[in-house]
Amino acid sequence: MSGFVEFWFDFSSPYGYFASHKVDVAVAKAGRSTIWKPFMLGAAFKVTGARPFMDVPLKGDYCVHDWARLGRYYRVPWVQPDPFPVATLGAARVFYWLDNEDPGVAKAFAKAIYHAYFGEGRNISLPEVVVDVAAGVNVNPQRVEDVIASPQWKQRLMEASAEAVSRGVFGSPFFIVDGEGFWGADRLPMVAEWLERDGW
Amino acid sequence: MSGFVEFWFDFSSPYGYFASHKVDVAVAKAGRSTIWKPFMLGAAFKVTGARPFMDVPLKGDYCVHDWARLGRYYRVPWVQPDPFPVATLGAARVFYWLDNEDPGVAKAFAKAIYHAYFGEGRNISLPEVVVDVAAGVNVNPQRVEDVIASPQWKQRLMEASAEAVSRGVFGSPFFIVDGEGFWGADRLPMVAEWLERDGW
Repeated sequence: MSGFVEFWFDFSSPYGYFASHKVDVAVAKAGRSTIWKPFMLGAAFKVTGARPFMDVPLKGDYCVHDWARLGRYYRVPWVQPDPFPVATLGAARVFYWLDNEDPGVAKAFAKAIYHAYFGEGRNISLPEVVVDVAAGVNVNPQRVEDVIASPQWKQRLMEASAEAVSRGVFGSPFFIVDGEGFWGADRLPMVAEWLERDGW
Repeated sequence: MSGFVEFWFDFSSPYGYFASHKVDVAVAKAGRSTIWKPFMLGAAFKVTGARPFMDVPLKGDYCVHDWARLGRYYRVPWVQPDPFPVATLGAARVFYWLDNEDPGVAKAFAKAIYHAYFGEGRNISLPEVVVDVAAGVNVNPQRVEDVIASPQWKQRLMEASAEAVSRGVFGSPFFIVDGEGFWGADRLPMVAEWLERDGW
């Protein structure tokens, strides 16, 4: 088998953030490449009836504790952002615009957005923060502002979110490998093993 | 640090079933022992508002596929039981009765119940099935029938379920190690690492 490993995530998802540090290396070890696909987790939650973890009794407290613990475990920067979660439409629209031109730049932008939010606690729902983060990876600020407000990239993100739901993606992160879906950052070792063993 | 690793689970939980095959060995490697603690996941769901996975669009289909895949991955017997999920009050009451007398026998009974349900598809909500499974690990059938209907062991299980919720257990399996909670079968390797490294 060959083909890309799809990495579906929401920019407001802590587990997506942690997975973003690991997925490329894990997949590259198996001789594959990734395609990063941000989507609006809210679109999936409308179908599943799920709520943000923070709003769920018991689970919310667990997750806050778990995220800080995972930050130490993976040795990646972690701050609990406030506000959390936030709408990440602007960042995701910019991602797809960049991805259309150069997936490498789009990936660098995605990592910078994730770092801004979960590594520094900056509010990535604000257009000016998205513009500033994009500038940090050498993307023209005026173009970014235009893209955030553009019907074309709004539409592109809506299509991506609809595609996620149509393919059974109900959480973030979610990996799709040769048609097999794996939900959760914890499953990344299993994804790698799936690739190495060519499934089971 | 020392002390037991608590393994909280519901007898109707597939992920609890898979974890039951792994938890004792993983914990023993770190020089620790487990305490098995069945509880009524429904008691936690009342607090969290969660629904059984099967009832959740997208997630239900994912889980059915995932469980069969995990059966092959872990090389343990797997059948998708029908009906599923079922109430497992009787089995859990018998567990606590046995546990009070001999935790080793209780654990053997728990494994036999899990196997009956997820390995053979038998309906473990039926008292006669619980009695038969108990007989298979040399437990007196008449005593089992009495325990299933006993207010004492009904009360014991209610207390266990209340304890679960009060300690933040919202899913199955859930591991508690030195006050640290870990949710999900996928986290067992992390639990083992936590034990080896004495936390992080």
